[in-house]
Amino acid sequence: MTTLLGGKPTAKALPFAPILADLDAADRAFANTLAQYRTPFASLIEHLKHYRGKRLRPALMLLTAKAVGKITPQHHTLAAAVEMIHTATLVHDDVLDEAEIRRHVRTVNAEWGNKISILLGDMLFTHAFHLTSQVDRRACELIGDATNRVCAGELRQVSERGNLNLSEADYFAIIDGKTAALTEVCCRLGAIHAGATEFVADKLANFGRCLGIAFQIADDLLDLTGDEGKTGKTLGTDIEQQKLTLPLIHCLSQLPEADAEDLRTAIRSGDRPATAALLAKTDSLEYAKRTADDYASRARQELECLPPSECRAILQKLTEWATRREK
Amino acid sequence: MTTLLGGKPTAKALPFAPILADLDAADRAFANTLAQYRTPFASLIEHLKHYRGKRLRPALMLLTAKAVGKITPQHHTLAAAVEMIHTATLVHDDVLDEAEIRRHVRTVNAEWGNKISILLGDMLFTHAFHLTSQVDRRACELIGDATNRVCAGELRQVSERGNLNLSEADYFAIIDGKTAALTEVCCRLGAIHAGATEFVADKLANFGRCLGIAFQIADDLLDLTGDEGKTGKTLGTDIEQQKLTLPLIHCLSQLPEADAEDLRTAIRSGDRPATAALLAKTDSLEYAKRTADDYASRARQELECLPPSECRAILQKLTEWATRREK
Repeated sequence: MTTLLGGKPTAKALPFAPILADLDAADRAFANTLAQYRTPFASLIEHLKHYRGKRLRPALMLLTAKAVGKITPQHHTLAAAVEMIHTATLVHDDVLDEAEIRRHVRTVNAEWGNKISILLGDMLFTHAFHLTSQVDRRACELIGDATNRVCAGELRQVSERGNLNLSEADYFAIIDGKTAALTEVCCRLGAIHAGATEFVADKLANFGRCLGIAFQIADDLLDLTGDEGKTGKTLGTDIEQQKLTLPLIHCLSQLPEADAEDLRTAIRSGDRPATAALLAKTDSLEYAKRTADDYASRARQELECLPPSECRAILQKLTEWATRREK
Repeated sequence: MTTLLGGKPTAKALPFAPILADLDAADRAFANTLAQYRTPFASLIEHLKHYRGKRLRPALMLLTAKAVGKITPQHHTLAAAVEMIHTATLVHDDVLDEAEIRRHVRTVNAEWGNKISILLGDMLFTHAFHLTSQVDRRACELIGDATNRVCAGELRQVSERGNLNLSEADYFAIIDGKTAALTEVCCRLGAIHAGATEFVADKLANFGRCLGIAFQIADDLLDLTGDEGKTGKTLGTDIEQQKLTLPLIHCLSQLPEADAEDLRTAIRSGDRPATAALLAKTDSLEYAKRTADDYASRARQELECLPPSECRAILQKLTEWATRREK
């Protein structure tokens, strides 16, 4: 197996220069919201900085806003809220996955236990909603709807663990919720609060949704074919957790029944070499890569509703990065 | 040890007659919100009906509304939202406490495991916020702030487990968050959406807060002195989890140091008879009862801002019930 086509911008090199000051303002809104808890839970809150990664969701909101018009203080508040929701899901995901390491450091659950992690995640959710309520009712509705979809997607994913007959439609329903709902609402809110028409806001929301789907397919591919040293996390966890992702679903549908049964057996026993050998009998890795590229291309098309600008160009670059990253 | 002064209205007999139709409307709003998930998670969503208990929080909102003016459809939506938040905390609490039984049936975690429980709780939180966003921005802000306090209270409680030097101030900070924040916001929202002035809304919010504190002190007393058959849940869990509650905090402050050390040892080893014997050396159970009664009385005083009415009389009765219930 080889890693994905690589050499493209890594997370650190994401081209966010025109919005860096605004990303920092969103970071401050995030930190200020939790500053009140310093005294009893200082080290716990402090640890959350390790959960800060690419800041993709705030960046999507701010880039969309700037590509449409102007970034406002409401965008900073909303960007902090979506990052808080994303962080809440990471904290709870690490409990669900019994993960011990994230971004090269110990997870909250590894350090403080599952109970503290569950409550910290809850607190991040509620603070995200409280932050959103500082903006307006519609933002609350949009963020509420997006997080409903995120949770339903996650719940469905956990419920389907071990289902080795998962369909492609089920897979898309799961990733549409767990990943695309949040990237979609980031772009919609970025657009709306910069004064976009509903038509443009819908287009940019669909940009965010397609980008999120492309990103998640690529992320699932990385779990199968990536390099642990580069990603900074344990890979192969999807097979370990009996979570079917697009290449495996496709492969199971393409293989002759006897081979498909062998693949199910390999997945059930967590036999990665046997899984890889059976995957190589079909073009399923390429199929998944093509599907991710197709969503990235759909995302690019939606950007055509905007006049050319530096931020539109960066949003376009993100669609390439989403499917070509190594981490 | 005896049970608390009893014979007063039980949960089933709570005098909610004038608002029963509205409680049912709130129930329907709750159920309708989750109806979309029937297909993939039918039995899970269905199981939540067992988590429906006294409906105290929706009842507080509706009684307050009717005591001030008129119940509106917005009250039904908000009553569903607060009950959903309460249910979310119960689902997560049962994971934290590794509880197997609630209201005489198996808990979600006992039946579906911790992972499903964490995600179901998250989904209930997000749906509660989405429901609230159907009302207005202020409701989102108030519910957001109340749930922030609830989560911070719970987080603090879990962090303080095993701290046998917990102060009375710490205890009040914990219960003010985990219980009183939600009863407070129920009464405030009930009042505001029935057209109350800010002055009256503040008074009724404080009614809800004092009632919540009285209720929680009585609940903690039940855990020490209650009857498992009547309460329908395992008692003695606070000592088992090394959670200090008001009688024990008071007793530790009253006993001579040698006895206090014996009490700490008894708590640490989960020795309930030794704990009871040392508790009986002080008037700490009565002190806690008096403190609960004092908060109940403060709550009653706040009701005087309202003209006499059937609903005001019921709210008043609830302050008596809160400290005298057996379950």
